[in-house]
Amino acid sequence: MAETMRKPETAPEVAHRDMANAIRALSMDAVQAANSGHPGMPMGMADVATVLFRRFLKFDAANPDWPDRDRFVLSAGHGSMLLYSLLYLTGYPGMELDQLKNFRQLGSHTPGHPEYGEAPGIETTTGPLGQGLGNSVGMALAERLLNARHGDDIVDHFTYVLASDGCLMEGISHEAISLAGHLKLGKLIVLFDDNHISIDGPTDLAVSDDQVARFAACGWHTTRVDGHDPEAVAAAIEASREETGRPSLIACRTVIGYGAPNKQGTADTHGAPLGADEIAAARAELGWTYPPFEVPDHILSAWRETGARGRAAFEAWEEAASRLGAQERARLHDPIDAAAREDIAAVIRKVKAGFSEGGEKLASRKSSQQVLEALVPVLPALIGGSADLTGSNGTKTKQHRDVSAEDFAANYIHYGVREHGMAAAMNGMALHGGVVPYGGSFLVFTDYCRPSIRLSALMGQRVIYVMTHDSIGLGEDGPTHQPVEHLAALRAMPNLNVYRPADSVECAEVWELALNSADTPSILALTRQGLPILRSEHDDANLSARGAYVLREADGGRDVTLLATGSEVALAVEAADMLAQDGIRAAVVSMPCWELFRAQPREYRERVLGAAPRVGVEAAAALGWHEWLGASGRFVGMDSFGASAPAGQLFKHFGITAERVAEEARAAVRKG
Amino acid sequence: MAETMRKPETAPEVAHRDMANAIRALSMDAVQAANSGHPGMPMGMADVATVLFRRFLKFDAANPDWPDRDRFVLSAGHGSMLLYSLLYLTGYPGMELDQLKNFRQLGSHTPGHPEYGEAPGIETTTGPLGQGLGNSVGMALAERLLNARHGDDIVDHFTYVLASDGCLMEGISHEAISLAGHLKLGKLIVLFDDNHISIDGPTDLAVSDDQVARFAACGWHTTRVDGHDPEAVAAAIEASREETGRPSLIACRTVIGYGAPNKQGTADTHGAPLGADEIAAARAELGWTYPPFEVPDHILSAWRETGARGRAAFEAWEEAASRLGAQERARLHDPIDAAAREDIAAVIRKVKAGFSEGGEKLASRKSSQQVLEALVPVLPALIGGSADLTGSNGTKTKQHRDVSAEDFAANYIHYGVREHGMAAAMNGMALHGGVVPYGGSFLVFTDYCRPSIRLSALMGQRVIYVMTHDSIGLGEDGPTHQPVEHLAALRAMPNLNVYRPADSVECAEVWELALNSADTPSILALTRQGLPILRSEHDDANLSARGAYVLREADGGRDVTLLATGSEVALAVEAADMLAQDGIRAAVVSMPCWELFRAQPREYRERVLGAAPRVGVEAAAALGWHEWLGASGRFVGMDSFGASAPAGQLFKHFGITAERVAEEARAAVRKG
Repeated sequence: MAETMRKPETAPEVAHRDMANAIRALSMDAVQAANSGHPGMPMGMADVATVLFRRFLKFDAANPDWPDRDRFVLSAGHGSMLLYSLLYLTGYPGMELDQLKNFRQLGSHTPGHPEYGEAPGIETTTGPLGQGLGNSVGMALAERLLNARHGDDIVDHFTYVLASDGCLMEGISHEAISLAGHLKLGKLIVLFDDNHISIDGPTDLAVSDDQVARFAACGWHTTRVDGHDPEAVAAAIEASREETGRPSLIACRTVIGYGAPNKQGTADTHGAPLGADEIAAARAELGWTYPPFEVPDHILSAWRETGARGRAAFEAWEEAASRLGAQERARLHDPIDAAAREDIAAVIRKVKAGFSEGGEKLASRKSSQQVLEALVPVLPALIGGSADLTGSNGTKTKQHRDVSAEDFAANYIHYGVREHGMAAAMNGMALHGGVVPYGGSFLVFTDYCRPSIRLSALMGQRVIYVMTHDSIGLGEDGPTHQPVEHLAALRAMPNLNVYRPADSVECAEVWELALNSADTPSILALTRQGLPILRSEHDDANLSARGAYVLREADGGRDVTLLATGSEVALAVEAADMLAQDGIRAAVVSMPCWELFRAQPREYRERVLGAAPRVGVEAAAALGWHEWLGASGRFVGMDSFGASAPAGQLFKHFGITAERVAEEARAAVRKG
Repeated sequence: MAETMRKPETAPEVAHRDMANAIRALSMDAVQAANSGHPGMPMGMADVATVLFRRFLKFDAANPDWPDRDRFVLSAGHGSMLLYSLLYLTGYPGMELDQLKNFRQLGSHTPGHPEYGEAPGIETTTGPLGQGLGNSVGMALAERLLNARHGDDIVDHFTYVLASDGCLMEGISHEAISLAGHLKLGKLIVLFDDNHISIDGPTDLAVSDDQVARFAACGWHTTRVDGHDPEAVAAAIEASREETGRPSLIACRTVIGYGAPNKQGTADTHGAPLGADEIAAARAELGWTYPPFEVPDHILSAWRETGARGRAAFEAWEEAASRLGAQERARLHDPIDAAAREDIAAVIRKVKAGFSEGGEKLASRKSSQQVLEALVPVLPALIGGSADLTGSNGTKTKQHRDVSAEDFAANYIHYGVREHGMAAAMNGMALHGGVVPYGGSFLVFTDYCRPSIRLSALMGQRVIYVMTHDSIGLGEDGPTHQPVEHLAALRAMPNLNVYRPADSVECAEVWELALNSADTPSILALTRQGLPILRSEHDDANLSARGAYVLREADGGRDVTLLATGSEVALAVEAADMLAQDGIRAAVVSMPCWELFRAQPREYRERVLGAAPRVGVEAAAALGWHEWLGASGRFVGMDSFGASAPAGQLFKHFGITAERVAEEARAAVRKG
């Protein structure tokens, strides 16, 4: 199919240079109009992008959701005008000229960096450097996984990435290229904008890497090319497409701000408008005689033809895809539809009933593994993995087989000690569609992948982070491995659901919630240590769905309300028993997800929290708890880093015990 | 001097194998006693470590604070028993046998991972993989900087790092080795434990990198060696020491768990005790006939001799260092002594007076630059830098010159787009002593270096993070670059001071506080946009030192208290003026540092916060604000990610305006 996509080189056509200059002109004009932005990269990479879009990229601008389109990822997101220019020129729906004129303005679909969801054709949100490269590994991986499941006629596409010096300086680039090299993702092609310039000046101020040798060391096919020689670029892309056994790097030597005669090749073109004089000079230099934002018809037509170049391929794909049922086809986008949700719900109910009945004390990481054991068979799109903590995280089940370069029909990924690469790849997998990724590490190492978690949240992607060993309950590994501030740090992030289940039953419930959250990523904070079953009476309803609920009401009115999450809910229950012996009536509220609770009607929240004095308990930093505790509230938790010792001793050492909760409750009751 | 350190190979000596076996035996015994830990790495790397300590490492166990000692960094911190064994065997003060017997127990100085400060000889806290490698780059850099300032007789030492597969899979490893290669840190030597095993199993499950080629691509000198052949290891170390123009990697092919006959070479030895049977079998295999924790006298003596091997060199150094004055010598450890604090205070007072008088509206990143302009001359140990945002962060002054491989007498580092590598290097520089590092990036990118910020805090190091563009005030770059949750996420971390100054005067004050915090790292959250001078009357006292203070009292008693930080303090002042027109008396409290405020006496805190209803305003997530606002408090801030538009429009769009603050204040007053 790939061959049919290429425009024959003999066809009469508008000169390459004119088409590339259209990108340059629009980019410098838009940045100038916004009086803010980055003209250098779009001008430097216009030739490479023109060759890619015109001769190779499999896409149909009129059908941007075509599941088998090639993906184009602008990892160097600051060059957003390159992408917006291309989307406008090729005729993507919604990307009118007005959008370019309103670059970086409130309400436009052309923000400073490309934001996923703002316009069709923006495959991912980029800007934080290296993230797009990480995403692209996930996209290329999803492509191979789905190819193995559906065959070449349904899924068989390339993933192209435009990456900058900055992308390749960020550590995430190493994790991404190392993982891609290991998995031999032959349909991943990185176009490196090798312009020798970063914000501070020439790159030799800060970096001396031989990038080509570095990629080769990670198992990549590599080429160097003059990024302003269209035939050389085309030959390099061609060779990279033919090399299917390894991912490919094409180091494109370019001149940043190409065409701006006085500023090109310097950091001056990187992140500021060129200014009216230099733009005029660039117009002269490039031979671009048209007014701002004007692309003459013959050039625009040539670009629009490019935008429609993939129409026949799209239609052929439609034909091929007609063999799939409607459901299977829709699941190439989102595998969790209404039917899947019903299947999931049935599994969860059954697992919950088993947990309630069995009554077994179980670490929530183990409960999670049992939930997965039941879920994987009904949800084949679920792709598991861990950043080298598989056994500890409980992320792998008997239903899993290891994905490798030789087996993409499998469903479990050893991401290696690469939390950041894993998270960025999961974003890419979710964005690609057709798969539902989850991946494990220790909760403390959310710090290592936080920039990608943020992008899961910002893009509203269903990515599930299985983060175990969620407190000092981790024990002997000590303070470097014990999260203290991480729950608060994650709860501070918009559009992220942080779940901390209290027992196996809640663990099953939060898995259901995470899977059903199509537009919100989830953190599952799970224990290393065993937790008693608190929900011993089965309830078909998902009680965790409201974020917090009264686990145990106080008979005859409350004297005090104990609020807790995760492993500390059992302490609260124990404390309530102690208090009962003193004649103090304590209710226990389990709060598995603050975000969902905050979204409940005020009346529900007030009923759950109650009017009695409150005591919160969580083996974590206090930050954020005052929201629930009120002015007189008391909190039992951590106010320092942890320590290295057996877990039981640590809870005593840091005063996180039922006795202490009861004591605080008594004091709260006394003070009213 | 290096030559004098080596033990002549002809000296009569205890067999290498016996000495290495002492490490193996202690490690497996301690892990077994703790019933928890990682025996595999210490057993695998015992040969390499023995060669290093016995023949090369410049140290004197009795004088662990010798400023010119070689640094030994155990980046693979899970192998902590390797380090503890070495410290015990060579006779470091405080590391008695009892400590090894109490490995991983509460109150011992032998936690699961090495914790800086627990015992002499632990050069840095490691465990989170790759961090030690990052620290070592900072240490090796500090060594060169100080060498350039003081000469070879005062500072001239090596930095050795033991790194694992895991360290090299983490992204931070790329930033670290790329920076080290660029700066040609020839006295940095990495010993890579190339054992082909990670937690999930053989490394080929997840990684196929050619590490030697990869380091070479970043400008390193490289060798491969059999890690169990002491002469080969010695030759490789020798060659690496002789190569002074490039950092060196020695890939030591080892067998994890070497000596455990049934488990060696497998992941089973990585992270769990070997078990009594396998330990017995290992004793037989190794020919180690002694009971648990017992090292026979002749072997212990040989090790103790090793520990004293550097005594003469230490004494020679003492002699050389006697030419330094007492102050200069003490400053090799901590450059900020009482005299320096006085100098700093004088500078700050002067700068503050200038700001108050000048009355110029200034972005706090610009004020910070002006403060630095005045500070650098009085504090030559201050080493600046930025992760490729020098101009934006205002981290470079006229007093700075770029550090390069050719000029270590300079004082400004272009860290490249390597926030994580920068932060880890700054930790290493602070730990090394003799320099005071600060480095800049955007506040949003604290996410990229959060694991290292956490280690600054956990180790109590004076590292100053200059994090600018601290809100939606960043403007057009949009949501990927606008921090929302970062202040909360950082405030949640123990032992970290988060400063958000309201104007130039506060900016000067928080610089003073950050420099004087010997045991606490600081985040300076600074604006992109201009801020009016609010402290127009000069006060010699550092008002920010109490964390929060009444910037403007309400005459005749308060109707409402407005609490704000940073750029929003000006909004609160404006709102107070509006309220005054309605006859509502509003006090304005500036809260540049919550952590310092929380540490004030309750009476002070209550006086500042007042009894009137409170309204908080900060262009950030609400999480944490309830602590200050009380039950009836209201908050004006962000509850979503930002957007791309000019800053002024964004503040209006998100409702963070003086009008809105006034409105909330009126509502608060009405409700009482």
